[in-house]
Amino acid sequence: MGKTGSHLLLDLLLASGIDTVFGNPGTSEMHLTAAFAEYPEVEKVLCLFEGGATGAADGYARMSGKPAATLLHLGPGLANGIANIHNAKKACSPMLNIVGDHTTFHKHYDAPLNSDIEATARPYCQWVKTLSCSDRLAEDAAEAISAAISHGGQIASLIVPADIAWGPSAARTLPAPACHRKKLDVAILDAAVSRMRDAKNTGRKIGLIAGQEALFDEGLELAGQIAAATGATLFFPYASGRVQRGRGLPRTIRIPFPVDAAVDLLAPYDQLFLLGAPEPVAFFAYPGKPSRVVPEHADLIPVVSARDDVLAALRYIADRIGGQGIDRDATPVPPMPSGALNPDRLMHTVANAIRENTLIVDEGVTTTRALLDRIGNAPRHDYLTNVGGSIGAGLPLALGAAIACPDRPLLCLSGDGSASYTHQVLWSMARHRLNVTVVICANHSYEILKGEMYRVGAMQPDGPANPLLELTDPRMDWVAIARGYGVDGLRCSTAEDLASAIDRGLDGPGPLLIEAALA
Amino acid sequence: MGKTGSHLLLDLLLASGIDTVFGNPGTSEMHLTAAFAEYPEVEKVLCLFEGGATGAADGYARMSGKPAATLLHLGPGLANGIANIHNAKKACSPMLNIVGDHTTFHKHYDAPLNSDIEATARPYCQWVKTLSCSDRLAEDAAEAISAAISHGGQIASLIVPADIAWGPSAARTLPAPACHRKKLDVAILDAAVSRMRDAKNTGRKIGLIAGQEALFDEGLELAGQIAAATGATLFFPYASGRVQRGRGLPRTIRIPFPVDAAVDLLAPYDQLFLLGAPEPVAFFAYPGKPSRVVPEHADLIPVVSARDDVLAALRYIADRIGGQGIDRDATPVPPMPSGALNPDRLMHTVANAIRENTLIVDEGVTTTRALLDRIGNAPRHDYLTNVGGSIGAGLPLALGAAIACPDRPLLCLSGDGSASYTHQVLWSMARHRLNVTVVICANHSYEILKGEMYRVGAMQPDGPANPLLELTDPRMDWVAIARGYGVDGLRCSTAEDLASAIDRGLDGPGPLLIEAALA
Repeated sequence: MGKTGSHLLLDLLLASGIDTVFGNPGTSEMHLTAAFAEYPEVEKVLCLFEGGATGAADGYARMSGKPAATLLHLGPGLANGIANIHNAKKACSPMLNIVGDHTTFHKHYDAPLNSDIEATARPYCQWVKTLSCSDRLAEDAAEAISAAISHGGQIASLIVPADIAWGPSAARTLPAPACHRKKLDVAILDAAVSRMRDAKNTGRKIGLIAGQEALFDEGLELAGQIAAATGATLFFPYASGRVQRGRGLPRTIRIPFPVDAAVDLLAPYDQLFLLGAPEPVAFFAYPGKPSRVVPEHADLIPVVSARDDVLAALRYIADRIGGQGIDRDATPVPPMPSGALNPDRLMHTVANAIRENTLIVDEGVTTTRALLDRIGNAPRHDYLTNVGGSIGAGLPLALGAAIACPDRPLLCLSGDGSASYTHQVLWSMARHRLNVTVVICANHSYEILKGEMYRVGAMQPDGPANPLLELTDPRMDWVAIARGYGVDGLRCSTAEDLASAIDRGLDGPGPLLIEAALA
Repeated sequence: MGKTGSHLLLDLLLASGIDTVFGNPGTSEMHLTAAFAEYPEVEKVLCLFEGGATGAADGYARMSGKPAATLLHLGPGLANGIANIHNAKKACSPMLNIVGDHTTFHKHYDAPLNSDIEATARPYCQWVKTLSCSDRLAEDAAEAISAAISHGGQIASLIVPADIAWGPSAARTLPAPACHRKKLDVAILDAAVSRMRDAKNTGRKIGLIAGQEALFDEGLELAGQIAAATGATLFFPYASGRVQRGRGLPRTIRIPFPVDAAVDLLAPYDQLFLLGAPEPVAFFAYPGKPSRVVPEHADLIPVVSARDDVLAALRYIADRIGGQGIDRDATPVPPMPSGALNPDRLMHTVANAIRENTLIVDEGVTTTRALLDRIGNAPRHDYLTNVGGSIGAGLPLALGAAIACPDRPLLCLSGDGSASYTHQVLWSMARHRLNVTVVICANHSYEILKGEMYRVGAMQPDGPANPLLELTDPRMDWVAIARGYGVDGLRCSTAEDLASAIDRGLDGPGPLLIEAALA
């Protein structure tokens, strides 16, 4: 069998550095699936559910800085992946979805699995195109890759009819994808520098709200330097894609989820500069509470958006602002607790378990909401969380981040409600023997919604239990679920047991699931 | 707290006979969630994942003949439900999705969970509307219900901003939803009657391809009568929503999934009449094989579409065609097998386990593909399968059908690959103590795709294993998965053990999962 369109597409992916696929294929992707098997240099991660594949591609992109491919089956397969595509889009993660379609000559028969794939993709993707002929495959695929890697990371969905995947490869030189990003506007940067200097000189209270490259590696150091030189506080939005924190790193403060707390935190500030982050707003509206958390009296100054070259902007500003010394977090980690687990003891156990270079993926929702504030001086770590708010991101992010960084221990914290959406990825973790330690914070309840019920005024705190919010009947057995996927599991109800279980998990080599019994 | 828009919506649902909700709510649905709890007459089924909720609403609608409501959280929550909405749409199941949105005054802040919900819904729903003000709530909701129950069953998605859900209820008489259906074209029916008579008199071979109401209860008897009177064979499409079969019922023949087999089956026919079914076509295109399975020489005669009043059309035709005697299936059920399970032994064990009035939900994919041909003379049963082809429908359909028919035993057959998409519904089955017996046909492989790989020419039958098709490393432990959800489970590897396990399951009262080890 000669080279097909599928081979050409894979050649192009590899030439562009895309060497990882998270997939769940079907009949319309059979030639693509066969071709993937012929390329040993591609890491092929089979996911049992598409939301696992797209969430993993998000986690992979955040840690590797480059897109993974996903391989999805028609409109419904894409739809199964949309919630985590939504989350990835909000995180500015690059992603290339390869979605199979019926052959060009079968489409109009409206077979059972037929649907409008482009319309399905469009609300959640910056770039969508259906290949229309074999001759255009290389150019269209290069355009898709360009879209994924441009503007700080985008979602590109390339829809591939089966007959183009199985058609002949048009022999030609491979086009080179290009990364597009808006040129920085130096006038805006200069103005920001002036305002920062003025604010410092006039004693006005300023904050920097950082995002994207301003939250890790060189960018974080630069942001810390700018903050120190201007006397600013360095904030980041509650939902941020990747934040590097820990001992010796610049002090960063997370803007809290509850709208009142966010408003209180930012109330004293006169000027807030956006450096790679959007304006922080309330996740939801509540009767009588504001949607904006930035105070009305404050100047909100957009300097560089997440879509632009944040790192270059930081270099430019830091170069002009100068300054020495960085405010490094020295808040001691809370002492190791003991006794029956509750949210505080769980968080403090985790805080003491962090090792140098740990990846932390946190979708612990209510249980671990305050964790980040307490681990600023723990050993250095990367902290990843759900950016788009669609629950069910945590475990898939962990899968993808662990594929990107196989040599780093990964600690994934999840609520039991949140883990229930996409725990199929546990199987993929076992298959790839990934060093992932999953802690399920098992409170047997959509605890966040009980708080939200009260905050929106739908229920009193002492109201009767609502059958749509309780996970108690029956209680899920997470150790059994883990074993079902071939993952070792154990249950802990004390801080001491949790500490030793996490230690065992981080030692690796394979995945371990720990059910932390909170109630 | 006074009556809110949420209460008004619930009053309208109940007045329209919609008394069941499958939901997975979030913050934007808190007032709806609170209101549901205040209506004890509404059956509230919490699902851990939205695809379970929409698939259950499909199964519920097929058996009850009326829509359930779903309660979904914003665009991503809806997206998680789309694959099974797609399946329900293809099955003509009525469904009313209630999707919360941000408040009207918060939407433009583009908070993390914001997305275009209407655009998400549109490709998969016949009716979509966002409530724009409290005053219009009752009328818009009535329009949504009308859409759901009209034209043979449609998908309606009503998007409810949180402030309309929590706003005051406009006191008024409740508008009455209306069921719209195209008036039957008597000329077409008369012409069909003439052609059937002519065909019989001229000895031409004719087939009826039946769908919707022609496949159960009175409609099935009428279709059987018409077939007998005209000497026609009574077919139904491979993917049909609900088929009543078994001892004493008219003989019906399923058009097979593999395109070659479907072509061969229909090849001898000169005239094929569509009675509530679309033209059967190949699920997928294969190189060198046709997309159509109806022979080129045959007349394909659309008589009544699935969207029209199929039952009335059948009454009209049967009245004119007359006839006595119906061809009732007398093919003996294969004898009870013994020994190690393989697909044939599994099917024959199931065939012998069927009890009068059993509901069978079948997503056994390759393993049970031939089951239906072998149980035409088993005790009377309803047979439900995946109509839209998006895998992950089986278990959710079983949940919904069992909620609709709590007094009937339900046997759900699923592949292991297919069960992996949406097995979260097992928890809901345990919660509602439903008499559901789930048989997981565990071959640890996407077996169907290996066949498809070969059929599309992407692989030789003896080719090396493809890592994107094998579920062997690790093998899932379905008994552990079941226990994780609070469902009893056991594993069988022989026909004898499977038979007694199914018996135990059908005895009820609660759910039982059986892993049928095939390899």
